[in-house]
Amino acid sequence: MTEQPSKLETLRHSASHIMAEAVKELYPDVKLAIGPAIDTGFYYDLDMPHVLTVEDLPKIEQQMKKIIDRNEKFERVDIERKKAIKQMKDAGEIYKVEILNEITDEKVSLYKNGNFTDLCRGPHINSTKELKTFKLLSIAGAYWRGSEKNKMLQRIYGTAFESQKDLDDHLKLLEEAEKRDHRKLGPKLDLFNIFHDEAGAGLVFYFPKGAVLRGVIEDFLKEEHEKRDYETVVIPHISKAELWHTSGHFEYYRENMYTTRVEEKDYVVKPMNCPGHILIFKRKLRSYRDLPIRYFELGTVYRHEKSGVMHGLLRVRGFTQDDAHIFCRHDQLKEEIINVLDFVFDMMRVFGFEYEINLSTRPDKFVGTKENWEHATNALIEALKSKNESYVVDEGAGVFYGPKIDIKLKDAIGRLWQGPTIQVDFNLPERFNLKYTGEDGKEHRPAMIHRVVLGSMERFIGALIEHYAGAFPLWLSPVQVEILPIADRHLDYAKQIKAELRRNSIRTKIDDRREKIGLKIRDAEMQKTPYMLVIGDKDIESGVVSVRARGKGDLGPQKLDKFISERKEEIAGKK
Amino acid sequence: MTEQPSKLETLRHSASHIMAEAVKELYPDVKLAIGPAIDTGFYYDLDMPHVLTVEDLPKIEQQMKKIIDRNEKFERVDIERKKAIKQMKDAGEIYKVEILNEITDEKVSLYKNGNFTDLCRGPHINSTKELKTFKLLSIAGAYWRGSEKNKMLQRIYGTAFESQKDLDDHLKLLEEAEKRDHRKLGPKLDLFNIFHDEAGAGLVFYFPKGAVLRGVIEDFLKEEHEKRDYETVVIPHISKAELWHTSGHFEYYRENMYTTRVEEKDYVVKPMNCPGHILIFKRKLRSYRDLPIRYFELGTVYRHEKSGVMHGLLRVRGFTQDDAHIFCRHDQLKEEIINVLDFVFDMMRVFGFEYEINLSTRPDKFVGTKENWEHATNALIEALKSKNESYVVDEGAGVFYGPKIDIKLKDAIGRLWQGPTIQVDFNLPERFNLKYTGEDGKEHRPAMIHRVVLGSMERFIGALIEHYAGAFPLWLSPVQVEILPIADRHLDYAKQIKAELRRNSIRTKIDDRREKIGLKIRDAEMQKTPYMLVIGDKDIESGVVSVRARGKGDLGPQKLDKFISERKEEIAGKK
Repeated sequence: MTEQPSKLETLRHSASHIMAEAVKELYPDVKLAIGPAIDTGFYYDLDMPHVLTVEDLPKIEQQMKKIIDRNEKFERVDIERKKAIKQMKDAGEIYKVEILNEITDEKVSLYKNGNFTDLCRGPHINSTKELKTFKLLSIAGAYWRGSEKNKMLQRIYGTAFESQKDLDDHLKLLEEAEKRDHRKLGPKLDLFNIFHDEAGAGLVFYFPKGAVLRGVIEDFLKEEHEKRDYETVVIPHISKAELWHTSGHFEYYRENMYTTRVEEKDYVVKPMNCPGHILIFKRKLRSYRDLPIRYFELGTVYRHEKSGVMHGLLRVRGFTQDDAHIFCRHDQLKEEIINVLDFVFDMMRVFGFEYEINLSTRPDKFVGTKENWEHATNALIEALKSKNESYVVDEGAGVFYGPKIDIKLKDAIGRLWQGPTIQVDFNLPERFNLKYTGEDGKEHRPAMIHRVVLGSMERFIGALIEHYAGAFPLWLSPVQVEILPIADRHLDYAKQIKAELRRNSIRTKIDDRREKIGLKIRDAEMQKTPYMLVIGDKDIESGVVSVRARGKGDLGPQKLDKFISERKEEIAGKK
Repeated sequence: MTEQPSKLETLRHSASHIMAEAVKELYPDVKLAIGPAIDTGFYYDLDMPHVLTVEDLPKIEQQMKKIIDRNEKFERVDIERKKAIKQMKDAGEIYKVEILNEITDEKVSLYKNGNFTDLCRGPHINSTKELKTFKLLSIAGAYWRGSEKNKMLQRIYGTAFESQKDLDDHLKLLEEAEKRDHRKLGPKLDLFNIFHDEAGAGLVFYFPKGAVLRGVIEDFLKEEHEKRDYETVVIPHISKAELWHTSGHFEYYRENMYTTRVEEKDYVVKPMNCPGHILIFKRKLRSYRDLPIRYFELGTVYRHEKSGVMHGLLRVRGFTQDDAHIFCRHDQLKEEIINVLDFVFDMMRVFGFEYEINLSTRPDKFVGTKENWEHATNALIEALKSKNESYVVDEGAGVFYGPKIDIKLKDAIGRLWQGPTIQVDFNLPERFNLKYTGEDGKEHRPAMIHRVVLGSMERFIGALIEHYAGAFPLWLSPVQVEILPIADRHLDYAKQIKAELRRNSIRTKIDDRREKIGLKIRDAEMQKTPYMLVIGDKDIESGVVSVRARGKGDLGPQKLDKFISERKEEIAGKK
């Protein structure tokens, strides 16, 4: 909060004031909630009887232009909190009153421009005239304070930039992103959905095609972990609260945990896999010769998120991590981190993502010794250097229990997605009293690394969908080949071909509807099916298949065995 | 309760009275809780200051023999409940008082023999003399009424038979079962354990070797389901209580469900997968041409069991079902059931189990029409007949929502284990208003089949461990080959061999400890490793491996490629 906002943030924040002012001039009975700048622009949450639609946005934009033309100065007014409460109460601004009631400072600041006043920390642009390029984008519902318990407000999203070119680029990106939105493509491609009403927000149901996609990725991950000498373990989803007291989560992570009761004792629905893996590590006495030990699990965890912040597969309440915990000697840290980095970079290559790397170092508050922190941080740095990878250092941005590397995936249109993390932990080995017998015959504390390679399966699948706009490479496609018989009399031949493709482990479907072939092709293209085999009289006569490739159209007739061997190669190569 | 107990049950129940009487004569300050006959004998739960050990059992048996010699008659005394309460209160039998307080009948029955009186429904043998062959077996702790909240009592287990031969056979079986007990073999073979204190009772942690075993079975199941045109789906572990109100579970299954709260709403940790699969079925309009639809999931569920009844992998609080739900037209029922039976019998063959089949028909209380019940029951019967399988009919023993087939696995020593079930359901399609458009263009209600092929993965793995006494066939063995280098100088060659075996997907371990080869062989045999390769100077010189097979000893030197190709064949054949 002490950090100064950037110029662009300030501009956008002022734009949100101007937008609220415009709405108030058009609809005087609006009540204002909050209106911050965000990464991509700004929004304002409003409580008003008039139900806004996108059709209202041009009118509001017009009104904003009037305010800009008025060249209203932004003025800061420092005022006693109590006076501010009275003023807001008189104005009927119940949400501002609620916010003010929770502020503990004696004085607060208001910002005024023209006849508009808002509770605000600032800063702002000097005058409304400085807002030159902006656009209102959309309307959404948003619960007051992000909680289902509260009233649903109306949110107007907008954005503002310093130049028209920046705005145009952004609008183009939005348009492209809109087409790739996994929340739309998920149900459209019949991959998954979230049944908010029937089952709850933030809880993902994978349909058969989505489960295939996830299964292919999971099988691949399992193979890769095995190859790299990870051992798989399986732990239950619920366990006694005591375990989470020992780990410390019950104290510092309580509000994000779902709990249940078993015979009058508190149990926790696991929000993390670490304590379970630690119990498995602790089942035996360990010697220096046993280390490193690497436990892997596709571990499903549940964490509370407020209703308001849930977003498709990215912010959910239940997700599966490709989670592993490495228990090693401190002198093995660097090698283990190099191995993890190799693993991560291999995976990024296979899935076709570029990436950006961040290293977070020791914060002011930390557990463990400075020596261990330095040693571990150096191990992370040396590992990154040995891979010739460039990275950004976030000084002091590490969590209290150890330094970490975060890797963000960069998708096809340049957006960043939270991905792999490699986190050293000095806290849990201490809390669980982990130890091994060293070569010196004495007890030592092992180091522990938490790491995910893809991160959350949900988020990763969301990123994949948007990265490929749903047109997955062949090896990931839930349906790899769709056979399209032109008429019912071609169905038998289609079935023979399907059987042959399945024998070769190629995922195949027949479209046996009595529809025109044009429609069948269109539907398969819509479903982003990589290959279509159109079957008609000629194909049967000549014993061939007419191949169409997604987005490339007709490739002409081919012998089936040639088609199969080429596809198998394409699949094996993960191209 | 109205059913008459068998002669053997009566004998055992009387034996439990005689045992309690003997204990009371030896330790007069004992308080009696309950003492029923069970499948394998009888027990009595006792509250007494003296802590019993197995050393006490012969003494109690001696005392029982004295009581038998006294030839005490069993007499039934019908008495007013209030009088019985007073009598038990005077005798200090607080547990009997507690039971009596909960009985609503005005009159109750006591049974007397000699100076011993117990609250009891009877019936009993005529006189203690009739108990000829019995044995006390073990002592265990047992919570009063099976709940951790209550006092821990002492339980004495015993058994009784009508002939000495039956008793001897039983004791032999017990001895054999003891050796195979999965609760002991699980940790001993390092497969799994349950951390009662740290994580909670009935919650299984799979160690690396156990996770491999489970993974092999799961991968095999996935393949087999795919082959049989099941589609995999994935659903979350928690969901809104509303879903469980719709399904009816919240009303009639509430006490077995774990619940949590999400933003002040009730959520359920799923005890079943059906409602989730139904939501997925309902995502689209369905036509008669779409059916059957078969959804499969290795679905992990959590159900409450009292602390007192938990038992290794058999009675747990969390388990994974190889669960599927088939939505089909009523005219497809028979064929679908035949397919499921084929699947089940195939699996039983592969895993080496014999089985017994039960068919449960319509009970007095039921939902759905009689016609549908008859149709479905006939489908089950015809399916069984078409497979030439013999089965036992439990008339009226079906659950209220549909008829079912239960299949019990018979293990190597003849014990039965709950296994596959095929359950027709008329209830959920109704409650969730499932429908499809028929060929007639009208709406119809689909039939629904719940089925598991292995049942609970936990229970099945428990059964497998006991069936094979931990000596799994090669394809299931977590470690298939263990390489035993005689000295450190043989380690490099051992590593080459390991790499070659792994390239051929054979799960291999090296015992690189500096221990004598005899000890290494003994340990590998103890771990039931199917093949051991002993590596010494000669093997390296001649470029061979010295093969030992589990339980068969030395098979002599072999060329590695021959060993590998034989093992690959053995694995592929699931022998």
